[in-house]
Amino acid sequence: MQIEIISIGTELLMGETINTNAAFLAQEFQTLGIDSYFQTVVGDNEKRIHEVLNLALSRSDAIITTGGLGPTPDDLSHESIASFFKVKTEKDLKVLKSIKEKFKMRGYKRMPPMNEKQAYKPKDAIWITNKLGTANGIIWKVKYNNSEKIIFTFPGVPSEMKQMWSDTAKKYLEKKLSGFTIYSKILKYTGIGESALAEKIKPYFNQKNPSVAPYASLGEIKIRVAAKAKNKKEAKALVEKTAKKIELKTKKYLFGYNNDSLEGLLAKILISQKLTLSCAESCTGGLLTKRLTDISGSSKYLKMSVITYSNEAKKDLINVSENTLEKYGAVSKQTAKEMAKGIKEKANSNIGISITGVAGPDGGSKEKPVGLVYFGFAYKDKVKTEKKLFGDKLSRSAIRLLSTQFLLNWIREELT
Amino acid sequence: MQIEIISIGTELLMGETINTNAAFLAQEFQTLGIDSYFQTVVGDNEKRIHEVLNLALSRSDAIITTGGLGPTPDDLSHESIASFFKVKTEKDLKVLKSIKEKFKMRGYKRMPPMNEKQAYKPKDAIWITNKLGTANGIIWKVKYNNSEKIIFTFPGVPSEMKQMWSDTAKKYLEKKLSGFTIYSKILKYTGIGESALAEKIKPYFNQKNPSVAPYASLGEIKIRVAAKAKNKKEAKALVEKTAKKIELKTKKYLFGYNNDSLEGLLAKILISQKLTLSCAESCTGGLLTKRLTDISGSSKYLKMSVITYSNEAKKDLINVSENTLEKYGAVSKQTAKEMAKGIKEKANSNIGISITGVAGPDGGSKEKPVGLVYFGFAYKDKVKTEKKLFGDKLSRSAIRLLSTQFLLNWIREELT
Repeated sequence: MQIEIISIGTELLMGETINTNAAFLAQEFQTLGIDSYFQTVVGDNEKRIHEVLNLALSRSDAIITTGGLGPTPDDLSHESIASFFKVKTEKDLKVLKSIKEKFKMRGYKRMPPMNEKQAYKPKDAIWITNKLGTANGIIWKVKYNNSEKIIFTFPGVPSEMKQMWSDTAKKYLEKKLSGFTIYSKILKYTGIGESALAEKIKPYFNQKNPSVAPYASLGEIKIRVAAKAKNKKEAKALVEKTAKKIELKTKKYLFGYNNDSLEGLLAKILISQKLTLSCAESCTGGLLTKRLTDISGSSKYLKMSVITYSNEAKKDLINVSENTLEKYGAVSKQTAKEMAKGIKEKANSNIGISITGVAGPDGGSKEKPVGLVYFGFAYKDKVKTEKKLFGDKLSRSAIRLLSTQFLLNWIREELT
Repeated sequence: MQIEIISIGTELLMGETINTNAAFLAQEFQTLGIDSYFQTVVGDNEKRIHEVLNLALSRSDAIITTGGLGPTPDDLSHESIASFFKVKTEKDLKVLKSIKEKFKMRGYKRMPPMNEKQAYKPKDAIWITNKLGTANGIIWKVKYNNSEKIIFTFPGVPSEMKQMWSDTAKKYLEKKLSGFTIYSKILKYTGIGESALAEKIKPYFNQKNPSVAPYASLGEIKIRVAAKAKNKKEAKALVEKTAKKIELKTKKYLFGYNNDSLEGLLAKILISQKLTLSCAESCTGGLLTKRLTDISGSSKYLKMSVITYSNEAKKDLINVSENTLEKYGAVSKQTAKEMAKGIKEKANSNIGISITGVAGPDGGSKEKPVGLVYFGFAYKDKVKTEKKLFGDKLSRSAIRLLSTQFLLNWIREELT
């Protein structure tokens, strides 16, 4: 079974929207073990949608489209798919009623007339209900060059698309699949560059089943080990055997697997060791605490954070001494130390952590360039510090992200 | 001139990486006025790269590839493009030397042998230098079916791709272009749904030059007005005429244009009115302050923030009364009010703002469901509050984002 994604929307071609839907669906195909070799983006244009449909139907068994199901005149997906197969669209009164009810539930007096369009679908297609919005999709079995193909349409809004995928298409495809399954495991690394890591495990990149491939993103390298086999058990055994060998050679930088995040792993450690935490942030401006509180239930271990963007705040809130700030400056080892100690005492938490640095693009000097960041970790009676020079070529947001990445990993290592 | 993007990388087909490069390049094409009707994603597979190249060359004048220039064996872009045109790749000793030097500069003893691969390019192609990394790209003029086409290759790492695009391909294409230009303006809205907004300006969606189209994302609707004309002045006049008419009908929800962000606009207001700000966050866990400090120079107006994730923190740091917390709870109008007032006094800032709510997925109750959020705004001698019910169907991250979106817009409105 081969599937492909057609993302429909001029906003994608104009770069107004980033195509996160394709990434989500691609991951889902992986889990199901469905091959997918192409993704295409096309605008809201009937002729070009026909071109792309024709190519996709000629090489794949199933097609998923996202986008173009909205109420505005530029949304043309159902109309274009219908006209490709020379079929008319028909109004469905039940669906129209359900759309009207959705508007009422949201406190509108009436459905905007524009939305009536969303009650039309190609004859013979089956609706996929959108529980969150008014853009319903379809499942449609079609004939193309005498073979049977299947088309799924979803709206472009990610939360709606995801719910509809899980409720319908995913279940449908699970039933259809037979023969083999793909199993994959992702090893996650931080604190090392892509080629330095790749060099350590070079021979593995040439093997086929399981295949081994690296993916680099800011502050994180992933090594994906994936195998195909008759069943999950066999595929898993193939993957685990290779993954173990790779781990042995790369242990120092490995922090987790699959969906593990540094903040999620740290959460587990803090909960299991019954430790509480508090943070004093300067240059990261809340990003560190935002990441910690991305985890539902973080109130169990996070007591408080302060974002001390001024010297006054550092003095008033967490007792950094006037003397330290004057002698060494706000971006210094000494200030990072006093910040970590200060927030630990203020919060009466087991651990206090701190970040202070120059995120740029302004504010750098010869002594304290953009990218210089100090970190503090106060635990029991000790305060440790670390220093990083991320370099002034990185953007403000990159320096902020790498700072939180480094700190979260450092604290995780200190506590394990 | 028609251009298209081929994104090469199995990590994209597997959903490991989100294709932000395509969105960036698409925006750049818009600015230059180059048509682009298709984007394709293909894996690191020579045969399928050939298929995609063949199609793209048959319908476009220029092709940009991203990805597949790394040091690992799965990176095949230059090799595949060369073999498509039946040309060999050649080692360039100068480039090899420069790669070796980059490793030295980063403190490595030697270049990992794997990286030697990055010194090969198709004969006759011209290097595009990567100033940040070791993956250099190429510009290559080729003949396809007797017409001249041009191919640019870039690495997949966004910061490197962007720098190389601006340094070379962009300049090259600007020279090549002639005849017309596209000018566009984006109107930005918050606090209204897509179809309710679209209904107000329905007739405009049918016009062609300028074209008018809506794009919805979480908490924000964009209306894009774009025109094509012989020169920028003419195109701009067309756009402005329609944009003004649209503005008149939608003024209430319009907050800005083009790259305006709520945090950026608020920054301008605070600086021009010489006001300082401080924040007390609970459920947003730092996201509000993170957004405020995304703006370089935010230390001019942001004095401090506290993230009071526990009742103790609310009491200790910003004097929320025990009585209020007991009687009304941490998620209440009264607590939001005392938080805003408390942080304003603690920070001695002109303005204090606060957010307290239930971000979910846990922690909701019948009286205080997931999605209930209170906001506070303390300024001069008054404290105002607002309440929002975002609904329990939204994710934790959506509720957190919408809460900051609402607050930033509210404060912006209060101060203008």
